Amino acid sequence: MSKNTLLVFGTDPAPRLDRISGKANLVFADEETLPDLLPTADALLVWDFLSDAVRNAWPGSGPRPRWVHTASAGVDRLMCPELIASDTVVTNARGVFDQPIAEYVAGLVISLAKDFPGSWELQRQRRWQHRETRRVAGTRAVVVGSGPIGRAVARTLAALGVKVDLVGRTTREGDPEFGRVHGSSALWEPDGLLGVADWVVCVAPLTDATRGMFDARAFGRMKPDAYFINVGRGQLVVQKDLTDALIDRAIAGAALDVFEEEPLPEESPVWDVPNLLVSPHMSGDTIGWRDALAEQFMDNFERWAAGEPLLNLVDKRLGYVPVG
Amino acid sequence: MSKNTLLVFGTDPAPRLDRISGKANLVFADEETLPDLLPTADALLVWDFLSDAVRNAWPGSGPRPRWVHTASAGVDRLMCPELIASDTVVTNARGVFDQPIAEYVAGLVISLAKDFPGSWELQRQRRWQHRETRRVAGTRAVVVGSGPIGRAVARTLAALGVKVDLVGRTTREGDPEFGRVHGSSALWEPDGLLGVADWVVCVAPLTDATRGMFDARAFGRMKPDAYFINVGRGQLVVQKDLTDALIDRAIAGAALDVFEEEPLPEESPVWDVPNLLVSPHMSGDTIGWRDALAEQFMDNFERWAAGEPLLNLVDKRLGYVPVG
Repeated sequence: MSKNTLLVFGTDPAPRLDRISGKANLVFADEETLPDLLPTADALLVWDFLSDAVRNAWPGSGPRPRWVHTASAGVDRLMCPELIASDTVVTNARGVFDQPIAEYVAGLVISLAKDFPGSWELQRQRRWQHRETRRVAGTRAVVVGSGPIGRAVARTLAALGVKVDLVGRTTREGDPEFGRVHGSSALWEPDGLLGVADWVVCVAPLTDATRGMFDARAFGRMKPDAYFINVGRGQLVVQKDLTDALIDRAIAGAALDVFEEEPLPEESPVWDVPNLLVSPHMSGDTIGWRDALAEQFMDNFERWAAGEPLLNLVDKRLGYVPVG
Repeated sequence: MSKNTLLVFGTDPAPRLDRISGKANLVFADEETLPDLLPTADALLVWDFLSDAVRNAWPGSGPRPRWVHTASAGVDRLMCPELIASDTVVTNARGVFDQPIAEYVAGLVISLAKDFPGSWELQRQRRWQHRETRRVAGTRAVVVGSGPIGRAVARTLAALGVKVDLVGRTTREGDPEFGRVHGSSALWEPDGLLGVADWVVCVAPLTDATRGMFDARAFGRMKPDAYFINVGRGQLVVQKDLTDALIDRAIAGAALDVFEEEPLPEESPVWDVPNLLVSPHMSGDTIGWRDALAEQFMDNFERWAAGEPLLNLVDKRLGYVPVG
């Protein structure tokens, strides 16, 4: 039996794929070589998941890999109509980022409640200025995104005593952990969830249904003392509407780990919008994450090579792995 | 029956004691008037618990209040040999600060693990610099102080997946929540707790046995990648030894909410020691805390007026409310 060709897109740094050595022809591609190499590949590992190169190269001529695995939770950078319509199966890195992102969000919630940014700014000024800050326990969070990351975020906030409402695409009753998962319309109803939350946390997948869902209308529904946190994708938010809401003090503050354009350009006004915390798309990236992503891929590769069902199979039309 | 005189030390801001109005002669004292008023009081509420005035005034001549309540968890500012030797009973604000301080410590742990201070400094510089950060789940914390605040801190960190060892004065087996509460000697044993902790959290009461317990020897036992957090009392730490350890990179970092001298003087070198986060003794002070402290005192006052047993009775020799 001839070996399959595994094309790896992204080499900076290259993944450690020791368990695959000898079991496939390993070929590495960069943005320049990808279009020519794509027709030669049986499988494609999208290791550099921040690039648009795969989506751009896919619609060309010639055969296409039968399996694409992306080392990311979101598949939005990857998907194009031709890939969706094809027989190619897509898998993702579901699971690797859940707990790290949940910790990150919990840390942001406490930091905002306790005004850590204020304390550390006062420290730079050598000013001792006691303030009264908020309790976290007893506040209310709305977590938008009911996949494994959203569930981990909800679970971690609940462990801190936060009352959490989890919001997915459609309403689901009888969730073993959360009872009801709200449909997204629950955000917008009169007295809906956007208006009662102290914390609105966005961890939704980026799809046609979610693009730009956090806009002026959404921020207008939020309480003036509420905070918005985005660790999903930048395009879920109309960034200008958020910065306007912050400048107008329509909401109390926000923390963004993802942006419409990444890296956030040095000249962007976003860097110094009042009450806005910026971090460089790192909420899920804990030490060893690249190795964890490579291990997860190799597990799936062994299944694929053995003809077994793949894990984390993405519903290409929905744009994420549907809940079990 | 003649009314008791309740002396309240501290008026900035004065406590709301509406439930007491009419049930006692309410007299307010400041640092200047306290020595003259102390002999007239049946009970004393130490509302300004950051002052040494009560300890200084107590040894004078004349009668003394039969009951002293301090609106703080620690009684170290209050205690003097004459008060300890007297028949006066002392109660404290046990309970009010537990959950707020636990949240605060959890927030510091996540902030340090995820390098939030680094992200927000990079934001000021408009620099997009992705870093890999730590997981919190799976790390180890040693919480020194096994009173209700220490227990709340331990419980909250455990909810984040941290493996927590709780350390009190003496070893206690069969704790319903933590199994074993370690005695303080467990910190210092070969392969002791100080050497395995990723987080050393100090919430101990300040007593003769704990004063200066975190010194060069303690920081020398800690791992180079470990962090130290103090939300107890500044005098539990030899501040110069800690700042030396930070400057020498003997430990990874620290967060201090309490200091040898408070407010931390503007000219103190502590403000800009590398990898040291400073906050102004506020970890427990959430919105409404003063009202919570007043309510708690009024509850105890009603018990006292009715001749019922007081809550939160401090063991004056130990310097805290003994467990159970």
